[in-house]
Amino acid sequence: MSEFSQAAIAEALTAISFNDDGLVAAIAQAEGTGEVLMMAWMNAEAVTETLSTGRVCYYSRSRGKLWRKGESSGQIQRLVELRVDCDGDTLLLIVDQTGVACHTGRRSCFYRAARPGGLVTIAEPEVSPEALYGHPHSHG
Amino acid sequence: MSEFSQAAIAEALTAISFNDDGLVAAIAQAEGTGEVLMMAWMNAEAVTETLSTGRVCYYSRSRGKLWRKGESSGQIQRLVELRVDCDGDTLLLIVDQTGVACHTGRRSCFYRAARPGGLVTIAEPEVSPEALYGHPHSHG
Repeated sequence: MSEFSQAAIAEALTAISFNDDGLVAAIAQAEGTGEVLMMAWMNAEAVTETLSTGRVCYYSRSRGKLWRKGESSGQIQRLVELRVDCDGDTLLLIVDQTGVACHTGRRSCFYRAARPGGLVTIAEPEVSPEALYGHPHSHG
Repeated sequence: MSEFSQAAIAEALTAISFNDDGLVAAIAQAEGTGEVLMMAWMNAEAVTETLSTGRVCYYSRSRGKLWRKGESSGQIQRLVELRVDCDGDTLLLIVDQTGVACHTGRRSCFYRAARPGGLVTIAEPEVSPEALYGHPHSHG
């Protein structure tokens, strides 16, 4: 991803309708496969950092602070493209995902499917959560 | 899509963490192409109706009522599969989209991309909004 000017970042921010909490929903989709990996939230600072650095940064509602994806697990996301929807309240991030997106060790967070007989698990972990979070990680 | 039992619907609802407004975010992704079409919201009634009928029904926050996708435009979504994410606060709907998902007449709502030089439009309308909404439609 090329360098974003301050003006380009400002224009992107202007197109986004942040909600009353100052947040916008952000869907991460894997470049190439098109797999939908996760959904999280961003504030203006997270959008700015993501466009500035090319590395995806969300806002953690539970922790109340910026969440540089992969800071604990090493499973970072490089931004390929940030897209804005028609009414500006959702972003689609095309990303190059290192490893797995889900904290359970699965590629995608959407690993349970509602089927006529009940909920079924459609993907297994590729790495154990212990391996992801069990010891301090230098990437974060 | 096969018929969902009451028990299967109840199990899906139990896996979903509705927010304080009783809503859950729902991402629609096109079956086959993998294109992310839109993001909207569902309440428990919308999830129930969607699983019961196989036709996607959202909850319109602006109108404060169920929104049977395509009721005005005819651009309906047939549900292929409903998936629940790891913490239950986002759904991924794999859908068979009739026509276009966006009210602007584009396939996807995510038609603007942030580029280093500024925001660019990356998809054009396939049908005019007038054609979608200009006269009463029998599908809704």
